[in-house]
Amino acid sequence: MESLPLFKSIVGENHVLTGQDTLRYSVDFTNKYKGDALCVVRPNTTEQVSEIVKIAAKTKTPLIPIGGNTGLTGATYSEGAVLLSLERLNRVRKINTEARLAEVEAGVILANLHDAVAEHGLSFPLTFGARGSATIGGNLATNAGGSNVVRYGNTRALCLGLEVVLPSGEIMDLLTELHKDNSGYDLKDLFIGAEGTLGIITAATLKLTPTPAAFATAMVALSDLSIALELLNKIQKETGGAVEAFEYMPARYMDLHAELFPQARPPFETTYPVNIMLEVGATAPRDTKPDEAGEIPIVAMVETILGEMIENGAILDATVAQNEAQRREMWERREQAAELAFHKQPFVNHDISVPLDKVAAFLERIEARMAALDPAFDALPVAHLGDGNVHYTVWPSKSAHVSHDAITEAVEDVVQELGGAFSAEHGIGASKLASMSRRKNPVALATMRAIKQALDPQNIMNPGKLLP
Amino acid sequence: MESLPLFKSIVGENHVLTGQDTLRYSVDFTNKYKGDALCVVRPNTTEQVSEIVKIAAKTKTPLIPIGGNTGLTGATYSEGAVLLSLERLNRVRKINTEARLAEVEAGVILANLHDAVAEHGLSFPLTFGARGSATIGGNLATNAGGSNVVRYGNTRALCLGLEVVLPSGEIMDLLTELHKDNSGYDLKDLFIGAEGTLGIITAATLKLTPTPAAFATAMVALSDLSIALELLNKIQKETGGAVEAFEYMPARYMDLHAELFPQARPPFETTYPVNIMLEVGATAPRDTKPDEAGEIPIVAMVETILGEMIENGAILDATVAQNEAQRREMWERREQAAELAFHKQPFVNHDISVPLDKVAAFLERIEARMAALDPAFDALPVAHLGDGNVHYTVWPSKSAHVSHDAITEAVEDVVQELGGAFSAEHGIGASKLASMSRRKNPVALATMRAIKQALDPQNIMNPGKLLP
Repeated sequence: MESLPLFKSIVGENHVLTGQDTLRYSVDFTNKYKGDALCVVRPNTTEQVSEIVKIAAKTKTPLIPIGGNTGLTGATYSEGAVLLSLERLNRVRKINTEARLAEVEAGVILANLHDAVAEHGLSFPLTFGARGSATIGGNLATNAGGSNVVRYGNTRALCLGLEVVLPSGEIMDLLTELHKDNSGYDLKDLFIGAEGTLGIITAATLKLTPTPAAFATAMVALSDLSIALELLNKIQKETGGAVEAFEYMPARYMDLHAELFPQARPPFETTYPVNIMLEVGATAPRDTKPDEAGEIPIVAMVETILGEMIENGAILDATVAQNEAQRREMWERREQAAELAFHKQPFVNHDISVPLDKVAAFLERIEARMAALDPAFDALPVAHLGDGNVHYTVWPSKSAHVSHDAITEAVEDVVQELGGAFSAEHGIGASKLASMSRRKNPVALATMRAIKQALDPQNIMNPGKLLP
Repeated sequence: MESLPLFKSIVGENHVLTGQDTLRYSVDFTNKYKGDALCVVRPNTTEQVSEIVKIAAKTKTPLIPIGGNTGLTGATYSEGAVLLSLERLNRVRKINTEARLAEVEAGVILANLHDAVAEHGLSFPLTFGARGSATIGGNLATNAGGSNVVRYGNTRALCLGLEVVLPSGEIMDLLTELHKDNSGYDLKDLFIGAEGTLGIITAATLKLTPTPAAFATAMVALSDLSIALELLNKIQKETGGAVEAFEYMPARYMDLHAELFPQARPPFETTYPVNIMLEVGATAPRDTKPDEAGEIPIVAMVETILGEMIENGAILDATVAQNEAQRREMWERREQAAELAFHKQPFVNHDISVPLDKVAAFLERIEARMAALDPAFDALPVAHLGDGNVHYTVWPSKSAHVSHDAITEAVEDVVQELGGAFSAEHGIGASKLASMSRRKNPVALATMRAIKQALDPQNIMNPGKLLP
């Protein structure tokens, strides 16, 4: 590769990797995508990123930005391309506690940012299982979601400003700290979620939020999903919109979890058809300061609401965590979703969203469709129900010989009927290109292509991803 | 105009206006921009919009979408163009109370949407003075702000999906009801705030919020602005983030208001240097149900917090509205800002934003800069302080002969020093093209131009606006 010496002159010998040294970057988290990178380049500054991109632009070399390599869609699959690792751009440049924001570089690991702001009594509320490896740059490039979106929004909603290196190598400094800025097109949101196909995000200004001083975390059992949205709206109303998580686990999930994690204490003595894990986060002393009896007001409040709902028959059962250990137990059960989904091979995974009031319809219809395709199928739904986001794993039976794509097509059919999206929070990458082709509104797809062509006319930025 | 018969065949004779009939559309709200439209076309459906745009594309006729004509930047100034009025696309297509959303057409007047959703106990929380004329399409095209942004965000944050007619005439249906959708580039946010330069927004899916059942509205007096952000953060923490408005009025504002509206009851007996109007909105019965003494808990709570802050010297004085009439009085004083700004001619107006912790610095620096330029100047700041958004009106003295542009340059210098934006919530239109040229990051400006060129290669969509 003729650019190697140039890259080395920019970042130093030690930070241009080839051969075996590239494997940790070019083989993905799920072991599904095994790329063959020309090399891995690890710049240390935005200026170095800019110089690398200028060389790539000159030599028409494909460039793929990579963060923590925790994506699930093959968005950093690297056949014949240079992998540009942002891991050394890992500085928290600024934390402003009064204005509640942080300026951080793309390579900062999400959990490290959590720790850095926790010292100031603040939170960066984006969180999900891979937080110990995933980086802010990757979070932004994929507009990552997770379990707190119902309160705080996804990564896009948490970002005030960006620094981006464009396909020309120019640095575009949009690192504003502003809450209102109507000076032209919203470029920030175009680069967020673009999966590195329009440029490389090198830093961001992020919103911070006050850390809740107490949580009320509960498992709630329902007879069916139809009451769930009413439950969410009720808790939101009573707490003034303080619901931080609203997660759905069906009976199949609870049973499978008990089977795979026999040491875990089940929340209820019986298995109920619909189980919701909900969490309310409170900051106000009146909600968080224990009373004379040692009870925390927000916990007592959620107990009262749920008690009344059991009494009037709206819900079947509920249990509220009485301490942090019980709270952790509830979260762990939910966060072990990946272990549940991956425990049996082969599986076909889906990350879809539907309107908030259509989740029950989705599950009903897909069960019927799957039963028709493969009567002996097994499936596991789990949902960020407050966002209408369902992760739907199917284990096809051996006998039916149904192709994985036929299953995905069935899921997509139902999603489309209900006005949903075939990618909710994981993005497109390499794995959903076929879905983009067949499901995305063709006018929108043509508009995306026009934008890509305008901003990256040489198609060097993560080519072959996101856009089919 | 050769396209007139074609337009008439699409929308009917009565809905193509020429000559005198166009004045109501082509002369703007502030009487500053007096355009000379070729004609006004008033389609009734998205399909008709599409047909009109196809004709414009074929004949390379400039098209300017127009809503309530309440913009402040000349964004619908119409020399030699066709004005496409969205006023007849005024249907609320759907209100979903459970999923809390509405699908509305672009021509729906903001106040009419408020009324339509109020019947269901819900709010569309965007609000500002011109709500009785401004339309949803215009709100979206300019990403309108207003007084509730501190809690609910600007128009962008309240929109889930869009329907857009592209410069080709194609209809792009992005009318999703989804809270998570990572299926490609974020096109929605590109069209929001684009002021009709990339296409015509014809409908939108909007988020609704529960209407607060009680408000605690207060006037708070401070010795200087440095304590204001601490006050905001404290009230946010105590109320769990329920602050709906946090507005700043200096002594000059209070005095001028008393002069122009002598019948209004001043909140304090003396004039304090810094006056904040804050409002907390509560939905939970525990905050909103009057106690035995008839007191509303959220009001009592805000009174207690402010009482403590007076006691420990953090704030100088405070008065909390005891009934809706007193609350309206406080709001009216703030909403009469335009009357105050426009009462004396000539004035130079600015709509700028700075980081939340930089408002005091902005005001200090601009006072010094103005004093140097024009020692006898008079000025009136008023701010959506919770968003860092300052409206700064200058009345130059007659003696100094300072040009309006020199004043604007001074304001922009200070804004730029502090990392602010020269347009916070009003947009660019025709009036801020010079500011775009001299202040916008040139890399960002070039990127915007590339996008405009890609999506509207014939430059027929509101040409000459937003991009210099």
